[in-house]
Amino acid sequence: MLQAIKYSESEGLDILDQLLLPQQSVYIKIKNIDDGFRAIKTMQVRGAPAIAIVGMLSMAEELKSLSFQSSGELIQRMNQRLTYLITSRPTAVNLSNACHHIRQLAEENLQLGVSELRDKLVKFAVDMLENDIADNKAIGKHGAEAIKSLNSGKQVNVLTHCNTGSLATAGYGTALGVIRALHEGGNLAHAYCTETRPYNQGCRLTAYELVHDKIPATLICDSMVSLLMGKTGVSAVVVGADRVAANGDTANKIGTQQIAIIAKHFNVPFFVAAPFTSVDFNLASGDLIPIEERPSDELACVNGMRIAAQGITCWNPAFDVTPANLITGIITERGVIKPAELSTHKKKQII
Amino acid sequence: MLQAIKYSESEGLDILDQLLLPQQSVYIKIKNIDDGFRAIKTMQVRGAPAIAIVGMLSMAEELKSLSFQSSGELIQRMNQRLTYLITSRPTAVNLSNACHHIRQLAEENLQLGVSELRDKLVKFAVDMLENDIADNKAIGKHGAEAIKSLNSGKQVNVLTHCNTGSLATAGYGTALGVIRALHEGGNLAHAYCTETRPYNQGCRLTAYELVHDKIPATLICDSMVSLLMGKTGVSAVVVGADRVAANGDTANKIGTQQIAIIAKHFNVPFFVAAPFTSVDFNLASGDLIPIEERPSDELACVNGMRIAAQGITCWNPAFDVTPANLITGIITERGVIKPAELSTHKKKQII
Repeated sequence: MLQAIKYSESEGLDILDQLLLPQQSVYIKIKNIDDGFRAIKTMQVRGAPAIAIVGMLSMAEELKSLSFQSSGELIQRMNQRLTYLITSRPTAVNLSNACHHIRQLAEENLQLGVSELRDKLVKFAVDMLENDIADNKAIGKHGAEAIKSLNSGKQVNVLTHCNTGSLATAGYGTALGVIRALHEGGNLAHAYCTETRPYNQGCRLTAYELVHDKIPATLICDSMVSLLMGKTGVSAVVVGADRVAANGDTANKIGTQQIAIIAKHFNVPFFVAAPFTSVDFNLASGDLIPIEERPSDELACVNGMRIAAQGITCWNPAFDVTPANLITGIITERGVIKPAELSTHKKKQII
Repeated sequence: MLQAIKYSESEGLDILDQLLLPQQSVYIKIKNIDDGFRAIKTMQVRGAPAIAIVGMLSMAEELKSLSFQSSGELIQRMNQRLTYLITSRPTAVNLSNACHHIRQLAEENLQLGVSELRDKLVKFAVDMLENDIADNKAIGKHGAEAIKSLNSGKQVNVLTHCNTGSLATAGYGTALGVIRALHEGGNLAHAYCTETRPYNQGCRLTAYELVHDKIPATLICDSMVSLLMGKTGVSAVVVGADRVAANGDTANKIGTQQIAIIAKHFNVPFFVAAPFTSVDFNLASGDLIPIEERPSDELACVNGMRIAAQGITCWNPAFDVTPANLITGIITERGVIKPAELSTHKKKQII
């Protein structure tokens, strides 16, 4: 399995530099929160679950490298650094959810000595990495079952957007995990992935994973979605999520919303695949999700070479919000949930 | 005004190599149909009206360079060469319409001597170049009036797709001509152009024209259309056409169909701007329009540099068909026509 995040007690944290993919596979070492912040901000690591895991592990590495006089001092330092870390990217909620939970964990264990407290916090980060793969496999299983049942067990064509695979998570993936599970079960006719402009996560990363796993797949431009649905036929769309609001509205990579609109036009089921760590029960609806706007050069240039005419203004919002009424179901590690029923799961949330 | 096609009796035909834009402005000489075919096929010239004009002028240049024993021999040669020329690209109908009309013209003037016949055929091609600008200015005027009246004269935001400007026509443009006319009349708040993957006609060519004309404009990715409509607001969409069927179904650059679907979702008026030479009254509906599929490298590579993962299959349809029921009106040189009323204009068609 492709591994974007490597961590061990002895070797520390290394991440695959996704800016260099698919041309080069280079791992870079993350020693502290400054390294983690930079890797997240510059998108060397991306994907909401992966951002949270790398953020937490960068915090673990930093805690391990420092000495503290007291548990209080450790917590104070950690809290201050996490406040900085979560400003790296604003839209995905997983990192901010993780920060919230690790702060709670620290407060609850204030009575421990420095070394035991640190071990507990490091374990929290390492557990996130390990649990994420199990969660993704559960998402894959539930999603594959839902899509199979909607298609009477016939082989299906599935369209996905952006990258939600091993490179966006600890491994296996969310939406791409559903495609993997369909393929493993012999139920996938063909996978389609969008290029995902302007950062090309689809053509660089998802295509790379699909080729790596020998999944029958075709790359299309973001502009070809409606022709694909109308002509070739798509059984279901599955995308990931950067933040799901309490009402089911879902922020995800720019372009997701319009795929949902097109899917509705063609009566194609539209699924969001995301772990519960992507749900923000504190936000009533998607209008409240902050949408990151990134530098215009990401749109105007490809690999440092300008493709747009000189002098043109660019707009580069990195995400959009798909309203809950366009979402057939949210595929989570606990099963497929209708957006309107998401809030009933709040009390059960565990990280 | 930007001039993609330069022609004079003495200097012959030169076209701007649009593959090199926006980095370089290089004109290339077209001496015969072989040169014209190559320029059209490789997209050194593109845009349905411009393709037809360059095709016809390349034929004129070829006729001027050859000697014929008789008018019959000239016509036979021309017919044979035009049969070849129209295979250069299959979707746009303007070139094929023009070939049909020049063949008719030749048959009707078989009694003329070689030199007079040749002059008449050359004049047909030159007239196309000259009439196209006048037609486009009329399209601009009618389109601007229609969009103004739908918006009670308020300043409007207009979205366009691909390039339909001076570079796609003899000058001024069709859909971009409407934007020019709105701007000239002080009625344009802002123009938005899509990047138009995979060939980037929007970011390379339309953005270039908008900057050149100092029209307030922003470039977006094809994936940002729904966010733009939902958040910023778009008063109208105006696109061009490669072929309009008799029922109003319209083939245009890939991505057009889904913009129309998204526009319907947001109740944004969706206009097609095209001269009557883009209408194919011989095709009852859009399903019959042949859709060109182009090489996958156009999608997988940018300026010769591969961006997609190695080994991935690509699908590269160059056009799609927008059904008439998604089109608010077809802006022609004779006024704005409802798609359902298009066929009543058949008898009036003049080229």
